[in-house]
Amino acid sequence: MSTSTSNTQDTIVALATSPGSQGAIAVIRVSGNDAITLVNSVFKGKDLTKQTSHTIHFGTIRERDEIIDEVLVSLFVGPNSYTKENSVEISTHNSKYIIERVINLLIRYGGRAARPGEFTLRAFLNGGLDLSQAEAVADLIASNSAASHQIAMQQMRGGFSNQLKKLREDLVHFASLIELELDFSEEDVEFANRDQLKELIQKIYSVINKLISSFEQGNVLKNGVPIVIAGKPNVGKSTLLNALLNEERAIVSDIAGTTRDTIEDEINIKGITFRFIDTAGIRETVDIIEAKGVERTREKMKQARLIIYLFDPTQDTIEDVQMQIEEVKGLNIPFVTIINKSDLITDAQRSEFTILNPLYISAREQIGIEELKEELLNQVNLANLNTDDVMVTNIRHVEALQHTQTSLEKVLFGIDNPVTSDFLAMDIRQALYHLGEITGSVTTDDLLDNIFSKFCIGK
Amino acid sequence: MSTSTSNTQDTIVALATSPGSQGAIAVIRVSGNDAITLVNSVFKGKDLTKQTSHTIHFGTIRERDEIIDEVLVSLFVGPNSYTKENSVEISTHNSKYIIERVINLLIRYGGRAARPGEFTLRAFLNGGLDLSQAEAVADLIASNSAASHQIAMQQMRGGFSNQLKKLREDLVHFASLIELELDFSEEDVEFANRDQLKELIQKIYSVINKLISSFEQGNVLKNGVPIVIAGKPNVGKSTLLNALLNEERAIVSDIAGTTRDTIEDEINIKGITFRFIDTAGIRETVDIIEAKGVERTREKMKQARLIIYLFDPTQDTIEDVQMQIEEVKGLNIPFVTIINKSDLITDAQRSEFTILNPLYISAREQIGIEELKEELLNQVNLANLNTDDVMVTNIRHVEALQHTQTSLEKVLFGIDNPVTSDFLAMDIRQALYHLGEITGSVTTDDLLDNIFSKFCIGK
Repeated sequence: MSTSTSNTQDTIVALATSPGSQGAIAVIRVSGNDAITLVNSVFKGKDLTKQTSHTIHFGTIRERDEIIDEVLVSLFVGPNSYTKENSVEISTHNSKYIIERVINLLIRYGGRAARPGEFTLRAFLNGGLDLSQAEAVADLIASNSAASHQIAMQQMRGGFSNQLKKLREDLVHFASLIELELDFSEEDVEFANRDQLKELIQKIYSVINKLISSFEQGNVLKNGVPIVIAGKPNVGKSTLLNALLNEERAIVSDIAGTTRDTIEDEINIKGITFRFIDTAGIRETVDIIEAKGVERTREKMKQARLIIYLFDPTQDTIEDVQMQIEEVKGLNIPFVTIINKSDLITDAQRSEFTILNPLYISAREQIGIEELKEELLNQVNLANLNTDDVMVTNIRHVEALQHTQTSLEKVLFGIDNPVTSDFLAMDIRQALYHLGEITGSVTTDDLLDNIFSKFCIGK
Repeated sequence: MSTSTSNTQDTIVALATSPGSQGAIAVIRVSGNDAITLVNSVFKGKDLTKQTSHTIHFGTIRERDEIIDEVLVSLFVGPNSYTKENSVEISTHNSKYIIERVINLLIRYGGRAARPGEFTLRAFLNGGLDLSQAEAVADLIASNSAASHQIAMQQMRGGFSNQLKKLREDLVHFASLIELELDFSEEDVEFANRDQLKELIQKIYSVINKLISSFEQGNVLKNGVPIVIAGKPNVGKSTLLNALLNEERAIVSDIAGTTRDTIEDEINIKGITFRFIDTAGIRETVDIIEAKGVERTREKMKQARLIIYLFDPTQDTIEDVQMQIEEVKGLNIPFVTIINKSDLITDAQRSEFTILNPLYISAREQIGIEELKEELLNQVNLANLNTDDVMVTNIRHVEALQHTQTSLEKVLFGIDNPVTSDFLAMDIRQALYHLGEITGSVTTDDLLDNIFSKFCIGK
């Protein structure tokens, strides 16, 4: 067995709260069949082995006669715990010295340091969470916007995996019937009603299709909408980024070509994260360093979901602007046309630019910034998004769904064409396998290692 | 009233664990008469107002219908809590987004953000801790060595304040008797037995004296033993510091005078912290920047409790060395004579240096470093220190003790000399006042503000 699933009988120990000197308390988690007896052996207070689940007890952690700390101990008697095992949470004073001593003491008395994600792995292995729920725990902790939080919360609470589990059970039923046919293959009987099977497959196919298409949006909500601020040198791209971030992140200077490295940052507009990508100017240049910047800008622009294209009306003529717009259109990415330095524009210029239907702003004077934010929300069309909709945000899930889809297509082909039951059964089994990968009905040690090794220790 | 003691009826809310993205869980503390009702109003699960103290409940924190998090809620019904008030600890997933939303929600529903140290302030105001115990909570969290931990733990568990409280009560008794004499001043009676009073005062005086003299050692144990590494330029001071710290903290170079700024760092030898102070060389110099470094070295050397004086036998003659040693002796601080680069020394040189009884090391080759560490422990004579001894580590306590001592001296003088009872009573009251400052029997808002504002929020 791999490292991640072995030794599930061990009692594991880890700091569950963030390390750091700023907190008042720290929580050390202990889980395993022997968790309560282990903690009891270093605890002076009530006999913890005789207390009921979900109770808290004051006492001291001692090494021989020395008091390491006065603590509160929370007891969770399995299966009524996160891991479904006996678990203890020790709330200590937040001193690195104390935390290290308590953990070391518990390890010397028979515990073992938990590996990354091992508490959640146990919750999964013991049936407390399915795999997509376990993955959502990490997403939930990492969530930093209303949208990403809501998606992770929904997934943790069951989300699409409950639906998939139900459909998978129905499919398992058909698979059994078809496999039964194999035993009677000489007799050419059909236990599985082909029409009903086809109906079920189509239903699953349609659900999966919807889930796959939710990925692009779900991914954007989870990771933020990538936006490029583009435009010729010195049109005020860095100033605009600063205005949007409302702080001095990029070094702003009047010298053209100052911003050579891309600087990434995020803002949150009504619960949606936008990842701004500030770039070097896009003019052609012979300066080698800057040429690299220009190339990178073009690369970044292709990754963007939206481009903010900036013009400087004090330098650009309407012809320049129209030419640049044509170039941007070639990228096939939605873009917003922005006239910067609008406080310096004449009425004549303004009427000239009107045909472009631009947004007028002044990044330096903070004019039009709120309107721009509104426009960004409109453009990505996510503001009124119903995050109650089931949404896939995990590339692993999308891949499994795509594999399921391929298998289902084969099953559908098999139903409509003269294909023997054994091939049909094989394709259904294949679909079941990939569906099971999402919820963890089917796992490999490699898969589990890969998922849980990305967790922090203590999770 | 000052800010620190006002509004003790408010329900206060704060993150009690360290902020940061590495933990699995975070704990939000809520305290106040309405703490349980407040949390109950945003919690979906059992009715928290109907549960018993020291129990844990699973449920969700909701804002209207939206689930902010699945949480565990720990209930502490006053006075069975740290603050002696109703208290709740909400264990959430460790997401900054979730923590902020839960805290903001609780504040919107009637809570208020806790000020630094406010939970511990309440524990003090409600009689859960005396003042020196409250101060020890902060010391305990900051403790980073076995010694500092043990001192803080002892102080938190009562330590010398229990002893002082008892003595103070006895003294209060005498003060009352003497004040009673004032009512009968015409009649020249003595309710308070002067011999017994004198005996008590002498007893208190002796206890206080011992406490005051423990401060130097206590302070060193709490804050570390300050050590200066000194010697002429290029004898290997920075290399030695690195060898002791076992990592590349100081920039080591072959150019004489490279280390111009003092670099402080700590190591822990058998539970005792040593604060090493690396310094610029002490040779006389005309280089202005470096001259400042030399001056600073002399300053630092005076603050040290121990000096490690380094020689380079490949450059220094025995006469040089003897001359420098005389100079160091003039500082009246214990010092250890170290011959560095001992791997490059001839047998003849070695026998020449023997009269100095030096320690031979090679900082570069990591030779003799462990022996040096042993020697440091021996020199400060703290290794076998009994940290069970009551020890004062807090400058505020020492000052109060010194003031008490002065008042007690006046009382003793008053007993032995023809001083009227009213003066005696006044001096005793003064002693009581200063004794009370330590345990917090006597406080001012300024004092409390000053103490608790240094705590972190959530403590």
